[in-house]
Amino acid sequence: MEKLPNKYPDRHYEIVIQAPEFTCLCPMTSQPDFAEITITYVPDQFIVELKSLKLYLHGYRDRGIFHEEAVNAILDDFIATVSPRRVEIVGRFNVRGGITTTVKASYP
Amino acid sequence: MEKLPNKYPDRHYEIVIQAPEFTCLCPMTSQPDFAEITITYVPDQFIVELKSLKLYLHGYRDRGIFHEEAVNAILDDFIATVSPRRVEIVGRFNVRGGITTTVKASYP
Amino acid sequence: MEKLPNKYPDRHYEIVIQAPEFTCLCPMTSQPDFAEITITYVPDQFIVELKSLKLYLHGYRDRGIFHEEAVNAILDDFIATVSPRRVEIVGRFNVRGGITTTVKASYP
Amino acid sequence: MEKLPNKYPDRHYEIVIQAPEFTCLCPMTSQPDFAEITITYVPDQFIVELKSLKLYLHGYRDRGIFHEEAVNAILDDFIATVSPRRVEIVGRFNVRGGITTTVKASYP
Amino acid sequence: MEKLPNKYPDRHYEIVIQAPEFTCLCPMTSQPDFAEITITYVPDQFIVELKSLKLYLHGYRDRGIFHEEAVNAILDDFIATVSPRRVEIVGRFNVRGGITTTVKASYP
Amino acid sequence: MEKLPNKYPDRHYEIVIQAPEFTCLCPMTSQPDFAEITITYVPDQFIVELKSLKLYLHGYRDRGIFHEEAVNAILDDFIATVSPRRVEIVGRFNVRGGITTTVKASYP
Amino acid sequence: MEKLPNKYPDRHYEIVIQAPEFTCLCPMTSQPDFAEITITYVPDQFIVELKSLKLYLHGYRDRGIFHEEAVNAILDDFIATVSPRRVEIVGRFNVRGGITTTVKASYP
Amino acid sequence: MEKLPNKYPDRHYEIVIQAPEFTCLCPMTSQPDFAEITITYVPDQFIVELKSLKLYLHGYRDRGIFHEEAVNAILDDFIATVSPRRVEIVGRFNVRGGITTTVKASYP
Amino acid sequence: MEKLPNKYPDRHYEIVIQAPEFTCLCPMTSQPDFAEITITYVPDQFIVELKSLKLYLHGYRDRGIFHEEAVNAILDDFIATVSPRRVEIVGRFNVRGGITTTVKASYP
Amino acid sequence: MEKLPNKYPDRHYEIVIQAPEFTCLCPMTSQPDFAEITITYVPDQFIVELKSLKLYLHGYRDRGIFHEEAVNAILDDFIATVSPRRVEIVGRFNVRGGITTTVKASYP
Repeated sequence: MEKLPNKYPDRHYEIVIQAPEFTCLCPMTSQPDFAEITITYVPDQFIVELKSLKLYLHGYRDRGIFHEEAVNAILDDFIATVSPRRVEIVGRFNVRGGITTTVKASYP
Repeated sequence: MEKLPNKYPDRHYEIVIQAPEFTCLCPMTSQPDFAEITITYVPDQFIVELKSLKLYLHGYRDRGIFHEEAVNAILDDFIATVSPRRVEIVGRFNVRGGITTTVKASYP
Repeated sequence: MEKLPNKYPDRHYEIVIQAPEFTCLCPMTSQPDFAEITITYVPDQFIVELKSLKLYLHGYRDRGIFHEEAVNAILDDFIATVSPRRVEIVGRFNVRGGITTTVKASYP
Repeated sequence: MEKLPNKYPDRHYEIVIQAPEFTCLCPMTSQPDFAEITITYVPDQFIVELKSLKLYLHGYRDRGIFHEEAVNAILDDFIATVSPRRVEIVGRFNVRGGITTTVKASYP
Repeated sequence: MEKLPNKYPDRHYEIVIQAPEFTCLCPMTSQPDFAEITITYVPDQFIVELKSLKLYLHGYRDRGIFHEEAVNAILDDFIATVSPRRVEIVGRFNVRGGITTTVKASYP
Repeated sequence: MEKLPNKYPDRHYEIVIQAPEFTCLCPMTSQPDFAEITITYVPDQFIVELKSLKLYLHGYRDRGIFHEEAVNAILDDFIATVSPRRVEIVGRFNVRGGITTTVKASYP
Repeated sequence: MEKLPNKYPDRHYEIVIQAPEFTCLCPMTSQPDFAEITITYVPDQFIVELKSLKLYLHGYRDRGIFHEEAVNAILDDFIATVSPRRVEIVGRFNVRGGITTTVKASYP
Repeated sequence: MEKLPNKYPDRHYEIVIQAPEFTCLCPMTSQPDFAEITITYVPDQFIVELKSLKLYLHGYRDRGIFHEEAVNAILDDFIATVSPRRVEIVGRFNVRGGITTTVKASYP
Repeated sequence: MEKLPNKYPDRHYEIVIQAPEFTCLCPMTSQPDFAEITITYVPDQFIVELKSLKLYLHGYRDRGIFHEEAVNAILDDFIATVSPRRVEIVGRFNVRGGITTTVKASYP
Repeated sequence: MEKLPNKYPDRHYEIVIQAPEFTCLCPMTSQPDFAEITITYVPDQFIVELKSLKLYLHGYRDRGIFHEEAVNAILDDFIATVSPRRVEIVGRFNVRGGITTTVKASYP
């Protein structure tokens, strides 16, 4: 994930990014999981560079990770890269074993 | 029901789990009842392991239990296993004798 | 209407019961009226037993009663049987003479 | 059920009657059943008088009868009273024991 | 109901008129009935003048008439006034005594 | 409009009455107007008798009256007859000349 | 209304034009009427020039004309200008006096 | 599954039964599967008795069976018990491993 | 626009391509127009290469062209490049001057 | 992909399988593509085993393949494994470069 300078740092404005093609692997069965990731943030000095974000999310494709950890890891990496004023990340995971899971984490 | 360590215990974040395939037995007639169980919680040191939750909910399949008791029993077991910061459980039971019942319980 | 012991009296939780097949008779014309009755309550020491509630509501089938009285009578009987912490009853009656009536009563 | 003279017997026209407040009793358990009855017919020398039809349908309120029989009995009585050119009767019965039933019969 | 010359008698074209504010009286109880009347026709030498049609339909406001007769009477008057190539009239009457009626008649 | 004794005067409860078939005449053109009247009230010693309310509303059928006046007149008559603790009346009138009007009045 | 050469006269293809902002005057009351005009045609040697069509439709703004005549007049002018292989014109007029009118004409 | 005599064997009429609470076990993993079963049939000398059908479908609750086999087995048993003139059975199974299956079989 | 070999030329199968981001310029005003282009075809020896199709459609961005011509030009170029067994192209252009246009052309 | 014996080979029945979580790689850019695959077939001597089908579809996860080829390859493999009486496969691919593609192939 890479950042670009925010040319309007004096303005408090909001950016919403929807990524419905997130996929990772279940760490217990190695079977693929699918989710829609939504990132809502208010930038400070930086904005996220979208192509690098796409490639960053592709990086989970071959990684075994729990739903809760995935959302929190994306949040940590997003904060580390972009240092937003605030950010919320929601992951809506497809049904597995008859159960659907949504994870919602935010900063600060 | 089993737990996993919450790798992000310092973060206050929310997890919503929808299980539309819950079924148990009526304690008076032994006929099957069907419900959708929704669990919304904020984890503390642990998160629930989803496969074990699925199997835990399957455990009600052959058990005679009233609607109100089922939702409260799931809540008790969830608290005992996961010790969340807060949790709400809603059970929406299918129509029986022309009557539909929804039970909603929460902690703390 | 009969009661069952509430096995979780220390917990403040909510139960919603929808009964869309309520029917009684108009006290002036003896023609049938139809309504959906919704009961929302927080139990104390008892919960209502659902089959007996169904039969109790069936008891209005041959009874001449005004809409407003029916909802209040159900509320009185519910309080007398179940002694809930709080309860609200809504009756949505089908159109008669081009007019639809909704009656809403609650305790305390 | 009563009939009125059809003042336009030379015209082939269609009448659709929807009665969503039909109720009868289950012949095995004496519990009430609920249905929506739809009558679609082309009159010949007579039309059905609507108030008498309403009262006729009320006549099932205290009668134990199977779903399939109710729809066929209404069809028989309708034919005997109104002698329509053609008629179709559909009964959509509310869920019982998790099962919903629709019965459709027509003449000729 | 009045007619206007159809300035395009050589062309086969269709006109649909919806009148959702039709009201008449029940001939048995003198209570008001309400309906939506839809007229679909292909004109020949004449078209219907819309304001006169509106006033014509208002003429049923104080008239006791059965649903079936109302639709057929409108059809007869429409044919007598406008002599269309073809016309269909549908009357959808509001619920009375829990029963909804639709009458559909056409020419030729 | 007639009243019935409220059998539950000690309880503060709400009654909503919807009458979508209201019609009166325009005082300037004598053309019919159509509206849905909604009455929401909390009864004191009396409730309104619904059949008499229906007939009362029918009484506007041949009366020339402005939209605003109709709603306020119904409110006055309702207060005079039923003496409710509080009441709100809303009239939603159908489009005339491309314009739709809603009038809302309440007591106290 | 003006035409442009159809650069693909050998191909049988279809063009649909929707103009939801048509307005004219009622020839009896001089009050404005509003309609959506839809033109569906297969061009031959010419296509209609869209800006001139827009201005042509604006030309009805101060003109008193009946609904049926407006649709047929547009059809005549369209045929005279564009000489299409085939064309259908539908005018959906807004409610007036509680009545909505749709006129549909086509060629050949 | 039990049968009742069809009191109207001379009439060709249709019965549709929807059972959205079907559940069985996967024969490979013993995990529960869920489906909605729809039965559409024309009776001959017999109709199916609905309570026995409900209990028959409950009989699959503890049985390991593939989706395709379940639908065909129900069809075979239905034909053997009821001997209908014709019958179609559709099973819509809930998602498993990200895959949803529908099986449709009919007779004759 | 470039082609790829169709690896399954013996099979008659269908491909639908939706491109909702088409934009060109109005040849009279140089203002931008927007459309959704839908291409439905059955390939013969070749399929269209999607990235080159995207770039081909981008090529209209600075080009002044009428709606009708754009759709026919795309059709001609598609046929010349891909030589499909059959193809249909639909262009749905956004509202301009209150008018929406759809152009549909096909081969053979 | 593996097969199971079809226990009802004498019956002509239909199976529909929806797999909305298909993903593969673009052969030109190695970027992930996403699609919903729908398989509709009538079995002969065999049915497809669903878990093996799931794993078979997972096998495309790391494979570079064009949309058109993927659908045809699945069709070929399905025919080779299951030898159905007939089968249709539809792949609906997510938007790439502003373009959405659907591929539909069938046998025989």
